[in-house]
Amino acid sequence: MKETTNRSKTRQKTSKPLVTSHDFNNVNTINHTSDTLVFALGGLGEVGKNMYCIEHNDEIIVIDCGVLFPEDSLLGVDYVIPDFTYLVKNQHKIKAFIITHGHEDHIGAIPFLLQKIKVNEIYAPKFAIALITKKLEERRLSKAVKLNEINGDSRIHTKYFDLGFFNTTHSIPDSYGVLINTPNGRIVQTGDFKFDLTPIGHNSDYQKMAYIGQIGVTLLLSDSTNSGVSGFSISEKKVAQSIKEVMRKTPGRLLVSTFASNVLRVAQILEAAVACGRKVAVFGRSMENVVQIGKKQGVINIAESNFLAPNELNSLPANKICIVCTGSQGEPMAALSRIANGTHRFIKIIPGDTVIFSSNPIPGNDQSVSAVVNQLTRVGANVVVNSPLTSLHTTGHATQEEQKLMLQLIKPNYFMPIHGEYKMLKQHTETAIETGVNKDNCYICSNGDIVVLRDEHCFQANERIQTDDIYVDGNDISGLSTSVLKDRQLLADNGLVAVIVAINSKQNKILCRPSIVSRGFVFIKESQTLLKEAELVVYEALKEKMKQKTTFGELKNCIRASLEPFLYKKTNRNPIVIPVILNSKSAMQSLEKSTKPKKS
Amino acid sequence: MKETTNRSKTRQKTSKPLVTSHDFNNVNTINHTSDTLVFALGGLGEVGKNMYCIEHNDEIIVIDCGVLFPEDSLLGVDYVIPDFTYLVKNQHKIKAFIITHGHEDHIGAIPFLLQKIKVNEIYAPKFAIALITKKLEERRLSKAVKLNEINGDSRIHTKYFDLGFFNTTHSIPDSYGVLINTPNGRIVQTGDFKFDLTPIGHNSDYQKMAYIGQIGVTLLLSDSTNSGVSGFSISEKKVAQSIKEVMRKTPGRLLVSTFASNVLRVAQILEAAVACGRKVAVFGRSMENVVQIGKKQGVINIAESNFLAPNELNSLPANKICIVCTGSQGEPMAALSRIANGTHRFIKIIPGDTVIFSSNPIPGNDQSVSAVVNQLTRVGANVVVNSPLTSLHTTGHATQEEQKLMLQLIKPNYFMPIHGEYKMLKQHTETAIETGVNKDNCYICSNGDIVVLRDEHCFQANERIQTDDIYVDGNDISGLSTSVLKDRQLLADNGLVAVIVAINSKQNKILCRPSIVSRGFVFIKESQTLLKEAELVVYEALKEKMKQKTTFGELKNCIRASLEPFLYKKTNRNPIVIPVILNSKSAMQSLEKSTKPKKS
Repeated sequence: MKETTNRSKTRQKTSKPLVTSHDFNNVNTINHTSDTLVFALGGLGEVGKNMYCIEHNDEIIVIDCGVLFPEDSLLGVDYVIPDFTYLVKNQHKIKAFIITHGHEDHIGAIPFLLQKIKVNEIYAPKFAIALITKKLEERRLSKAVKLNEINGDSRIHTKYFDLGFFNTTHSIPDSYGVLINTPNGRIVQTGDFKFDLTPIGHNSDYQKMAYIGQIGVTLLLSDSTNSGVSGFSISEKKVAQSIKEVMRKTPGRLLVSTFASNVLRVAQILEAAVACGRKVAVFGRSMENVVQIGKKQGVINIAESNFLAPNELNSLPANKICIVCTGSQGEPMAALSRIANGTHRFIKIIPGDTVIFSSNPIPGNDQSVSAVVNQLTRVGANVVVNSPLTSLHTTGHATQEEQKLMLQLIKPNYFMPIHGEYKMLKQHTETAIETGVNKDNCYICSNGDIVVLRDEHCFQANERIQTDDIYVDGNDISGLSTSVLKDRQLLADNGLVAVIVAINSKQNKILCRPSIVSRGFVFIKESQTLLKEAELVVYEALKEKMKQKTTFGELKNCIRASLEPFLYKKTNRNPIVIPVILNSKSAMQSLEKSTKPKKS
Repeated sequence: MKETTNRSKTRQKTSKPLVTSHDFNNVNTINHTSDTLVFALGGLGEVGKNMYCIEHNDEIIVIDCGVLFPEDSLLGVDYVIPDFTYLVKNQHKIKAFIITHGHEDHIGAIPFLLQKIKVNEIYAPKFAIALITKKLEERRLSKAVKLNEINGDSRIHTKYFDLGFFNTTHSIPDSYGVLINTPNGRIVQTGDFKFDLTPIGHNSDYQKMAYIGQIGVTLLLSDSTNSGVSGFSISEKKVAQSIKEVMRKTPGRLLVSTFASNVLRVAQILEAAVACGRKVAVFGRSMENVVQIGKKQGVINIAESNFLAPNELNSLPANKICIVCTGSQGEPMAALSRIANGTHRFIKIIPGDTVIFSSNPIPGNDQSVSAVVNQLTRVGANVVVNSPLTSLHTTGHATQEEQKLMLQLIKPNYFMPIHGEYKMLKQHTETAIETGVNKDNCYICSNGDIVVLRDEHCFQANERIQTDDIYVDGNDISGLSTSVLKDRQLLADNGLVAVIVAINSKQNKILCRPSIVSRGFVFIKESQTLLKEAELVVYEALKEKMKQKTTFGELKNCIRASLEPFLYKKTNRNPIVIPVILNSKSAMQSLEKSTKPKKS
């Protein structure tokens, strides 16, 4: 079992991979002409921004291109995306770009990639294409790439590669695993999967997986998200039944919140509501989108007459209404939160309403979910959440027994766990070893680590590919660096105080009363006196300092040195102090110079 | 069942309590001479800052004075504390100040209270006194108050009240429930409790509770923290056994992390380690403190020779070492995180180490705990966490069956759930009704709501006491307002750009090139050009504007109006723009004036 440090997610970055006892001679040097390379630009050591590459000579196959939703500590960051640097350099090599399914952590970074790289075609399943199309339209990138539909019968041929697909079950329709025939052996990448033995929608293609296993697979890359969870996960069909049972027993109005991305679940909820004699209303932008797409794609099949417009809600008795909405994660702006707080445009909770959470809180969201549950309860709703007793939600990812089934069907010689934090990858490796994979044939890798296939054998290369976390703030890929994030943390904790002083450096004279502005520090109306005093403290200190000739740097230090202790003494806080010195003479001159028309 | 809005925690504040169907005539008007009032200044609608008051005529009994640890959204806030306004106004009435046990959410706000109010004596159990003493020493408040020890036999008499105490079991030694005999009936306040049938440390006083129930209790205030959890919680003794079993099976070095506040658990871990032939080292400030106090108080009893100094760690074989440390919540600066990251002064993880988490992640901490587990795994440790299978942790709060036992022992006529979020209070009320409390005799209250006792009956008053969340940033109680927090959120998300312009308003002239400084916005070194361009954009806009006579407000708006679209176009971000206008002439005059010596 070879392990390397992971450079992503937990942020303890080290510059070199760990050297293992298996490194000897030149066994881990790549032959770039004849070897096949496997590496991730995202998805290892983290849950999100999945992006995997398979390279042989002058050809690269890319699988998925997802985002990671940032931790709270990444202040103001909207998404984290994979580092495309390697692909930018090697874009001429990209021969096939494949999407396994339509979840954000597999398709979300496509618009950002298209800003950096010319990609002619993307191969994706039908439902993913609908979602990608929507995404590209919103960003006015519809014409940037051609989308080709794949299904279980599709084949893609390049000079060195031969690709096929097999159906899997997951919490979205149309999810596929990928078989990649390479000159150095067969590789299987599972995509996200679970084995749902009684699925909603299409079935896993057990026969094809078994056949692939029989003809022989060198390397398996398999989904590790739930490798810490024992047993077999419950079926979507069981969840659908549980929801229907709760609905049958509910006398009043019904609100159901779930992940909009799980259109199969949404379809089941809508069908159950109609079966219980209710009409349905859909609230929340992403839920409305997904219902629209689901109808178009034939995943949602209830008659149009069952849908209520928002203004029709009051014309029906409570027990004839079911509202399906976003907000199962307690997102403050989502429909459910607004309904709970009484700020929704169309509906308010009335005592007797029942709210079903067909979801679990994603790690990190417990508190926000809890706040919404409290508020719903407070205004009179009966709240039903998922639990082992209620079975109102199930995962989309294989738990241990399902991971074992995948390992048994595919029977790989070598194993590389993907999609998951380090502890998940490690646990998945232990599971693989239990099913018979040789301990030395398992690779727990980091983004950028390279596993090399040579003559149906694998080894880990002694070189790596650069992969950083790229932060997106706004719509563009920005150079949002960690020093900017550090400043934001300081500003968030303590606020700021800016001190502006105008001097004339030639005459060594303060021209103007030091002026102080603050944000996020003290409530300004109540602190006028404090800030006025502070201005005098700075003024006195500067006057003293400027009795001798000084530099700007010294003046700035003088401002900080006089102000920081004063403010701490008065408030017990340490805001960021930003000294600004205006030198009127020289500044005027430089301004005049720079505003003159330039030759162009 | 009467319900009112809660003004705390979930932040959806409404200014009036809900009017219930039980309100008629003047039944809910207080007679301030003869009625007994019960209300909370903190602890209702939240888990933390517990503070309960019982008032009769000119006497107030106060029970507990805790802090609440802030949510992540309260940027830079260190603690949330109860609103002492009512007590400040009525401090002459305070006749007894009681602490039920020594946890932070029951004692943490004492130093802040003592800054506002003169309290002569605090009555607290032995272990709590040790912790309060330490706390007051650190804040140089040791002489501010006299601490009187209470135990199960203590009685406190005032003009109207007669107080007694009964032992409970909880995750800290010396926890007590309080019996308050009032002129209008008996009140029992449980403090935090669980029923541990095989406790470590002292036992619950079942006999006294049963006796109190027999003589008759009007109102029970009972701990609701775990009212959502069914069944009976597991015993500390079972946890101690599980820890010992893991220790016995562990070949290498052992690290155990737990809550420092649970000194009984710490004692069990130390004893188990010694029983398995290991010596112990203690890391982390709060853990070192608690071990010191625990030894002094006789809770920790292992021989001194079993303790290792940090520099002795390398002189013993791995299987003779057990390290007990802080950091079970993934706190980035705690011992365990530093050990995981390799930044601890004395030890690093070596492959073969086993790390036991004798704890659960507190809601909101899942991600930070997960990051530490990942990092520990990555550097080679075997990590064992609590689960229903491992039983390495148990709660300190009564689950449903234990809450029922309390209700059965005390047999109250009226019930008021305390300590918990709204959904917990509501669930606890349902549990109380199951045990036979009349539905109309239950009060789900918010902080500041008043339950009135009159002739052994209760009703809810039609008036309230003002209770806000008070934010502490630094050591003082500050006027940290929500507008300051909003600014911090904006700064955290987008950073800031300050624009400084010096003008002469009399001559209507810009004196000096506009100067721009930014923090948390863009990486300054890479953005010099951007900021220079921005300065020109502002300059051109101002020049245009100042062709006519304008006001300072108009100039500031002009700066924002020119800069914000420019920055958004260039970066797709919206930093806070802070315009600062220096008016050299008038400013100089005012400075001269204000620096002249004042008459005093």
